[in-house]
Amino acid sequence: MADSPVFHPFDAALQLLPTANDPHGFDGHTSAAYWNMVGPYGGISAATLVQAVMQHPQRLGEPLVLTVNYAAGTAAGAYRIHAEPVRSTRSTQHWVLRLTQPDADAQDQVVLTATAMTALRRDTWQQSDAPLPQVPAPQAVPRSNLQNAMEWLSRYDLRYHSGSVPSVWDGSLHPSLSQLWMRDEPVRPLDYPALAAMSDVFYPRIWRRRTTRVPAGTVSMTIYFHASARQLTETGTGYLLGQAQAQAFRHGFFDQTAQVWNEAGTLLATSHQLVYFKE
Amino acid sequence: MADSPVFHPFDAALQLLPTANDPHGFDGHTSAAYWNMVGPYGGISAATLVQAVMQHPQRLGEPLVLTVNYAAGTAAGAYRIHAEPVRSTRSTQHWVLRLTQPDADAQDQVVLTATAMTALRRDTWQQSDAPLPQVPAPQAVPRSNLQNAMEWLSRYDLRYHSGSVPSVWDGSLHPSLSQLWMRDEPVRPLDYPALAAMSDVFYPRIWRRRTTRVPAGTVSMTIYFHASARQLTETGTGYLLGQAQAQAFRHGFFDQTAQVWNEAGTLLATSHQLVYFKE
Repeated sequence: MADSPVFHPFDAALQLLPTANDPHGFDGHTSAAYWNMVGPYGGISAATLVQAVMQHPQRLGEPLVLTVNYAAGTAAGAYRIHAEPVRSTRSTQHWVLRLTQPDADAQDQVVLTATAMTALRRDTWQQSDAPLPQVPAPQAVPRSNLQNAMEWLSRYDLRYHSGSVPSVWDGSLHPSLSQLWMRDEPVRPLDYPALAAMSDVFYPRIWRRRTTRVPAGTVSMTIYFHASARQLTETGTGYLLGQAQAQAFRHGFFDQTAQVWNEAGTLLATSHQLVYFKE
Repeated sequence: MADSPVFHPFDAALQLLPTANDPHGFDGHTSAAYWNMVGPYGGISAATLVQAVMQHPQRLGEPLVLTVNYAAGTAAGAYRIHAEPVRSTRSTQHWVLRLTQPDADAQDQVVLTATAMTALRRDTWQQSDAPLPQVPAPQAVPRSNLQNAMEWLSRYDLRYHSGSVPSVWDGSLHPSLSQLWMRDEPVRPLDYPALAAMSDVFYPRIWRRRTTRVPAGTVSMTIYFHASARQLTETGTGYLLGQAQAQAFRHGFFDQTAQVWNEAGTLLATSHQLVYFKE
């Protein structure tokens, strides 16, 4: 219908409206299309925070750093983001963000804490010391059949070259490395929120390392956006190669480091996360 | 004198007093002993934030994650830290922190933004996939003579096995990797603030990569503390091995990833930072 615009599910999930009486407030609603097991996919939450920064009328420059801490489970329903630029220079801007939801007594409770930095990018000396791994082209890698596991997985075209989700949970030990091609399904031109979302696409490394499906969930994630807006535009609707591996598992937590390139081999983002696990 | 206790310079730098009328406030003062070129060593600022969390009467558990954003230069003088636990579960606690200093009009200005997470550590399955690199023992590596460059360097015993600060700035290209043994000078038993400080000990990777000393400074750093308090106690006053390397340099910023082990080979911390550079 002419009066009912068709949104990409990613854009629908990122719909934010200005909060009344708070110049730094944005009201949103969780999206069933990006649901994980008991809450939203962590990547969509990160993307929504980036979106709040992108929509803020005082924003200076492009996203450079985002750290998100998953302090509590996000419940299905409405949420409020507070995204405030707390210090700016001529070329950089630092942000403090939080996502809250009301509890049973209508008191706002913190669900996510976050900080971000935006900056004007300049042309400087450049060098990539993390080249695109030698993997077959995305068209040569079969699409993984994960669509029935969790709703958000149906929002992506994921093609694991190595380290795919185990099909048999036999407790065997393997290197934690995974490499996969990915893009939105249906396709959508890449932007900063989408890059943030795809930086979290990797399933918990401990599932791969131990071939054991223990309860696990991200508690903190940091993303460094190396790509300029022009490089995102150049990437368009192409596939991204994501790679993730762990460094240490101990005391109920492990870290995972990740890199994301486009098909042309440009390193678009590096990210790191700390993940809770049980047993 | 009996009434004048002798503090280690690190402990003196971390002296914080509760702020009047703010249960989450801590008042401190910059330390000349940890001065960098135009402000405090970034590691001492990170350590001071950890110290605020450690001193907070509502703290639950041990430090697990710290993200610090260097929003503006810290001026010599007094500062105030606000360190607030904003969400707690039975075993984890999320913190939002800021460090402020008054401007010329006595208005508080944000200098650092930060988030942190503390947690009760449990015994679980464990595995390190980042083993201690094969390097000679610290006693077999000569101590680097960097003491005259910046004051904070005199607070550490640094022994570069590879990737030391160039002695001739000839513009040649090299891998960005550095590996060094380090400990406090004079020695001091390791704790979380000290581990945070030493996670930032690496000089800007671009100086090594290009053998060119361009202006550079950390804008954001995240530390994952893998060590339990007991593992820090076991490490004691031993040397730590630090390793750092870059992944990408572009548009005036580069990232560097780092690992820190004790002499026994336990991975104590992994960290990442984004660094501004000029040209």
